[in-house]
Formats: sequence, structure tokens, C-alpha cells
Amino acid sequence: MRAPVVIINFKAYAEVQGDRAVALADACQEVSDDTGVTIAVCPPITELSSVSRAVTVPVFAQHVDAKRPGAATGHITPELAKAAGAAGTLLNHSERRMVLADLALAVRLCKDAGLITCVCTDTCFTSAAAASLEPDLIAVEPPELIGGDVSVTDAQPEIVSDAVRAVHRIDESIQVLCGAGVKTGKDVKKAVELGASGVLLASGVVKAKEPRKVLADLVQFL
Amino acid sequence: MRAPVVIINFKAYAEVQGDRAVALADACQEVSDDTGVTIAVCPPITELSSVSRAVTVPVFAQHVDAKRPGAATGHITPELAKAAGAAGTLLNHSERRMVLADLALAVRLCKDAGLITCVCTDTCFTSAAAASLEPDLIAVEPPELIGGDVSVTDAQPEIVSDAVRAVHRIDESIQVLCGAGVKTGKDVKKAVELGASGVLLASGVVKAKEPRKVLADLVQFL
Amino acid sequence: MRAPVVIINFKAYAEVQGDRAVALADACQEVSDDTGVTIAVCPPITELSSVSRAVTVPVFAQHVDAKRPGAATGHITPELAKAAGAAGTLLNHSERRMVLADLALAVRLCKDAGLITCVCTDTCFTSAAAASLEPDLIAVEPPELIGGDVSVTDAQPEIVSDAVRAVHRIDESIQVLCGAGVKTGKDVKKAVELGASGVLLASGVVKAKEPRKVLADLVQFL
Amino acid sequence: MRAPVVIINFKAYAEVQGDRAVALADACQEVSDDTGVTIAVCPPITELSSVSRAVTVPVFAQHVDAKRPGAATGHITPELAKAAGAAGTLLNHSERRMVLADLALAVRLCKDAGLITCVCTDTCFTSAAAASLEPDLIAVEPPELIGGDVSVTDAQPEIVSDAVRAVHRIDESIQVLCGAGVKTGKDVKKAVELGASGVLLASGVVKAKEPRKVLADLVQFL
Repeated sequence: MRAPVVIINFKAYAEVQGDRAVALADACQEVSDDTGVTIAVCPPITELSSVSRAVTVPVFAQHVDAKRPGAATGHITPELAKAAGAAGTLLNHSERRMVLADLALAVRLCKDAGLITCVCTDTCFTSAAAASLEPDLIAVEPPELIGGDVSVTDAQPEIVSDAVRAVHRIDESIQVLCGAGVKTGKDVKKAVELGASGVLLASGVVKAKEPRKVLADLVQFL
Repeated sequence: MRAPVVIINFKAYAEVQGDRAVALADACQEVSDDTGVTIAVCPPITELSSVSRAVTVPVFAQHVDAKRPGAATGHITPELAKAAGAAGTLLNHSERRMVLADLALAVRLCKDAGLITCVCTDTCFTSAAAASLEPDLIAVEPPELIGGDVSVTDAQPEIVSDAVRAVHRIDESIQVLCGAGVKTGKDVKKAVELGASGVLLASGVVKAKEPRKVLADLVQFL
Repeated sequence: MRAPVVIINFKAYAEVQGDRAVALADACQEVSDDTGVTIAVCPPITELSSVSRAVTVPVFAQHVDAKRPGAATGHITPELAKAAGAAGTLLNHSERRMVLADLALAVRLCKDAGLITCVCTDTCFTSAAAASLEPDLIAVEPPELIGGDVSVTDAQPEIVSDAVRAVHRIDESIQVLCGAGVKTGKDVKKAVELGASGVLLASGVVKAKEPRKVLADLVQFL
Repeated sequence: MRAPVVIINFKAYAEVQGDRAVALADACQEVSDDTGVTIAVCPPITELSSVSRAVTVPVFAQHVDAKRPGAATGHITPELAKAAGAAGTLLNHSERRMVLADLALAVRLCKDAGLITCVCTDTCFTSAAAASLEPDLIAVEPPELIGGDVSVTDAQPEIVSDAVRAVHRIDESIQVLCGAGVKTGKDVKKAVELGASGVLLASGVVKAKEPRKVLADLVQFL
């Protein structure tokens, strides 16, 4: 994906149930079109196909399982996500952690299915570990800051720069994002200065009264 | 749901990726319309909204999580399933078992969201336990027979009648289905004779060359 | 077990590492001998055999897995717990929840191995569900009160009496304990008045400066 | 640990319940004393303290949880394992996989507690990933060969040499073991030739009629 990248994780907030997921994706599309910044959207899996049909920005699943097509009731295979229109997927989000062996297999199955992978991590150690699995992107997010009011770029700037270094020591082609508490254009600017290729964020946009405004503010320095 | 009930679990088979989920749901709809038998369909969650829009037979999610709307990346809340058009959901399928406390909470949250619940179980013990959680349906399936060639109604008929008795001792209003290896109209007839209100099945229909034919055969004695 | 029953869960507190587990079990033994009240102890699994060798009060594992002897690295089979001297085990504690099918199987395997089972639950619904699995004891503990300063017998007395009723409607032979925030003899007295056969508690004793004194206070009205 | 290293995983086999765990550890001790080869033993956690007291070879837990001392019922903290006499621990065995973030935290907590860590992996990808977590040893074991009759060194020799290379590209100080199907001295010799620092094995020794003989055969070329 063309950096800088902003990924909006819709989570399972009430604000994105049903048609409202498409409305928020439309707002992301509009700001992306206006500014030329890559904005990817992660709707709930129930709205993956409706959002994929509605917008041209990259649509990511919030999670897929390390499963091949078959008897896997209640699981989302990479193929199912792809068939529903997904361009990529988050993996191992702090709210949906994966066993290491499954995470590694999921990245491989996603490659086979043609999905971009963004593995979420919590420290430099796990970021470096994830790099060996060869995902396209790694998003480092200290869990204690997720959903909070202080941006990781202020609270723990060194985790961003250290994670970028640790990942690139293993594989320079992987784009490193950061997340947790990111809310303003200044936070995003700081993230890029720290070496990140972009940001992953959620509540700051999803729960905003005027998401379009927040998005425009977020990408203003990119 | 009006008994007898036939629930078709699409699982994550290659045969139901993308548009093919709607095609299979259409076949179920047609046979239901022709025969008056309630046929519910469980497409992969990625196709929940597209299938819900396409058919009028009850559409079930294959799983929902015991989560309220909020920060629950990669999870399916009952509200999300409802907003996508689901009438109900499977819970605790053998391929997606749930922790007891979560299963109990999920049933409650589904009631609040207006979803019919069908809890899958493996023995008389767990069927009786599930009955205390007050779901609408319980589907007992010995896991070792799932996906196999011998119907539970032949291999372990007593598990069906015992589960019906055990569940109804707790709560007579719960409908008990059986599953695992069910493939023919004769199997379904036997299930009803054993006290079941219907059947839950998957591969027998999903992987069939002519699902319509198999479905017509399945419901012929109902 | 002869009611009233007091079960002391040592958890993984620093206060019970190594030999200190035996010291705390000794205190429980002494108070049990002095008062005639059944006091069972649940040391960390690492100290199961040393505590079992040191005391004659019933020693419980904090958890066993639903596994038969075999290739189960890192798991505790009921047979292993029994061979280490355990008289019984907790199952499904709120800090170690189990999948329903595993919980049911674990109770069966424990019976086969000669272990007493105490299934932990969080609500009337899950207490009633657990009753159908035929354990010896059920301990209801609202998770939000565990480790806190207010006893369940004050905060939610109705959950105790309702759980007792719900369990006994299914099986009168099961003893129902309550837990969460229980700290004093008055709390225990109230529990028994509400129909409980005893209590399950942890920090109130384990983290006490003088556990012997706290224990003597706890059982004074029994 | 001084290479070559042979780690014997006792798993939860019936052959190592109760006192039999010490008997098997004694056999390992004897062969280690006779040959000078480092043989570490992994008894079930219930027998960790009894085995630690009985032998001087390194005793490993089969698993510890990523938990600090506290309210962690049914969990094994690194401190508990250490207090029970453990010198180290396996982590992430294929029968006890861990979430990546927990695995990383567990390695750190083990370092703090003074435990040697051996992380089990299944492929070159996960071996390389594990290397970034800075454990002392990594044991690569293709799960499909575990417990089988064909040694990994015959079935997939390249996975051993590739894993050694992948791990050492990240951190040369980590010792790489291999496992799965390893049964004879020839298998162990082959493992060392492929670059491994030793082997991890279970059933070949634990279920042997004469473990002493099998052990002597295993280490003969070391």
C-alpha cells in the first residue's frame, strides 16, 4: 500500500452497525479522494461485503482465522474474506490475539488468497517476531493506551521508533504503523517523524460526531 | 420456529464462498416454499447480509460472540448479526466451542437483540446444561459423527431420545434438533420419531452436486 | 464433604510460593482440627503433592484439564492430580474458565479418577447449567466482586439464595457454596442463612497477616 | 545449557503419574552421569517439586503462564515453577500453544524469575519469530510428526537445518533443538549433523519398556 497509510478500525461499535458502516466508509473515501492519502477501512465482518461494494478505498477484514476452506463453522477463512471483497485483513489485534503458529499460518494463507496482511503487535519484541512471518504491514499498539486519550506518539514515542528499527532489521520491506490514542493530525505527523508509515486508529474517528472533519484533520500534514 | 425445522449449516466450505452462498440459500428457499417445511440457512458471516437480503427463510449466523457493542475487533456482536439481517444464530458449535459463562451471556444478549438461539451440544449432559440457559433450540451432535457417513439416528439413536428427555425435563418449550451424519429423508424421519423437532446438517447438502434434490429428499417425510 | 465447607483458594499469590503453601495449609489444618469445620485447601498445582503430604484436610487442585493420560504437554489430567494426592479439584474458576463440553468431560473424568469436583459459576443460569453436569459442589461467585471488599452475601444476597434454589431444582444432592468478597465470620453465617453449604474464598485468608486468626473468625458461627 | 542437550518431555502419560515420574527422572540422571551428556527432564507440573528434589539434572516445567504472582487460579507463574525447583521451562509446545503476546511476556517473566526458556515451534517462520523473543533454546517440531514413527531428521531434514539458519540469522546465541519422531542414537546424531544443539523427545523414552537402554542408545554418538 502506498504510504502514508491510515487504517480506520471500525471495531464493533454501535456507530457502525448495519448501514452506518457504509456511511462511515463513504466519509473515509471522500477524504481519501480529496487528499490523495491512502485510507483503508476495517468494517465489522458482517458488513465486509456491503462496504466493499460501496467504496474503492482498500477494505480490510478485522480478523481472519488460520483455516482453509472446509468444516470451520463460525470461522472466517481468508478465501471468504477475499470473496466478500476484502483487499486485506488485520491479524492478531489486541482484542483478538492469535496463537503464534496460527498467526504464521494465517499470514501464509492470506498471501495465497491475495490479501494484504497487517499484523498487530504490542512491543518491540513481538513486532520483531511478527516481521519474521513476512506480513505486509505491522501495527504496534501498546494495549494499555488503546481507546485512551493520550497518543502513543506522546506517551511512548520510543516504542514507535524502536519497533520500526526492530522490524526493519529483519525485513526492510515491511511498513510499520503505530496506534493507540492517535486522534489528531499532529499525532499522525509525529508518527511519521518517528519512522512509521502511518497509523491505525479507531474510536477517534468512529465515535466522532463529525468523522469527516476528524479525518481531514488527521491527514492534513501527510 | 415452526417445527419440524431443518437447519443447513454452510460452514466455510469452498462451495459457499461469495455469491455461491446466495445460490445455495435460494435452493433452500425453493424447497421450503414447495414443501412448507421450515428450512433455516447459516451462511458464512461474510455473506450474512447478502443472503439475508436474498431470501425470506430464516437466516442464522454460524456464531456470535458474548460481546456488547464496543471495542471488540474481529468479534461479531448479536447486534451486528441482527443489523445484517440475521433471524437467529448457532452458538457453541463443535467447531467453535464457547466457555460456559460466555455461552450463557451470549444467549441473553441474543434475546435482547431479538435473535433466535440454537445451542449446539455433544452429549445428554451438555444438552441438559444448555437447557438451563433458556435458548430456543438445542442441537445435539456427537462430534465424532460430524461430517461422517453414518447418521446419528442410526449410530446412536439413544443419544437423540435421551437428549430430548433431558432437555424437556428442564424446559419443555425448547426444541431439540439432532445432527451429525444426517443425509437422507429416512434419517430425518427417524430423528422426528426419536422426539427431535428437526435436524441440523451441513456437508450432506452443501457438498451435494444437486442440493435441491438432496433437500427435497430430506424433507419428504415431514 | 461434610457441610459446612470452607474452601481456601491459594491462587498464585506470592504468599504461597514454595514452602509457604504448606505453612498456610498447616494453619487451615489447625483451625479445622480445633473447630471441627471442614476446611479444604487449593494450593498452586506446583505444590499439590507437598501440601497433600503435609496435611489431612482435603486438598484440591485449582484446575484440571479435560484430558485422559497421554500426549498432553502442560496439562493436568485428573489422574495426575489424584496421584499427587488431591482429594478434589476446582473447575471453571472465573480465572480459568472452561468450554462447556470440556467442563462436562472433566467432571466425568474426575469421577472416574476419584476426585471431588467443585464447579465455579457466575450466575443462576450457569449454576443451574453446571448442576446438570453432576458435580459434587457448585461455587457461585459474581466475578465483579471477586477480590473486592464487599461480600457477595451483602452485595447480592439474592444471587446466593437463587443459585441454591436453581441448583436444587435440578439436583438436591449438590452442595452450593458462594464466594467473592467473603472475609468475616458474619459473611459466612449470612451465606449459610441464605442456603449455602459453605464458602469459597482466597485473598481474605491468603493475604492476611495472621491467617490463623482470620480463619478462626471465619468459622466461628459454624 | 551445555550442548548437546537432550530434553525428555514426560507429557501426561500414565507411565509418569505419581512416583513413576521420579523413577524415570532417576534413569535420565543415571545416563547423564554415565555419559556426561546434558539430559533435562520435563515431568508433569504436579511432580515438578518431587522430581526437582530427587535429581540434579535440569528439571523443566512443561509450561508456565504469562502471569505475575497474584489472582491467577489454575495458572503456573514462572515464580511458582522456580519455587518448586525448576531450572527452566518449555513454552508454546504444540499441545499447549500460546498467543504471541503472552509467549513474549512469558519469556521475559521467566528471565526475571531465573528460568531457562525453551520455546517450541513448528516451522522456520515461527522459529525465526521466536528468536526475536530472546529465549535460551528453540525446539522445532513439525506437529504432524510428533508421536510418530519417522524421525524429523529423516522425514524433513531441511526443516532442521533451515530453522537453525533462520534462528541464528536473528540471534546466534540461541540453541536450536529438533523433535518429533526422534527415537534412536542415529536420529540424534543426524540432528547434530544438521546443526541442531540437541533434541526434544517424549514417547520414545517415556513409553519404552527399558528407558535406561533407550536413553543410552540415544546419547551414544554425542
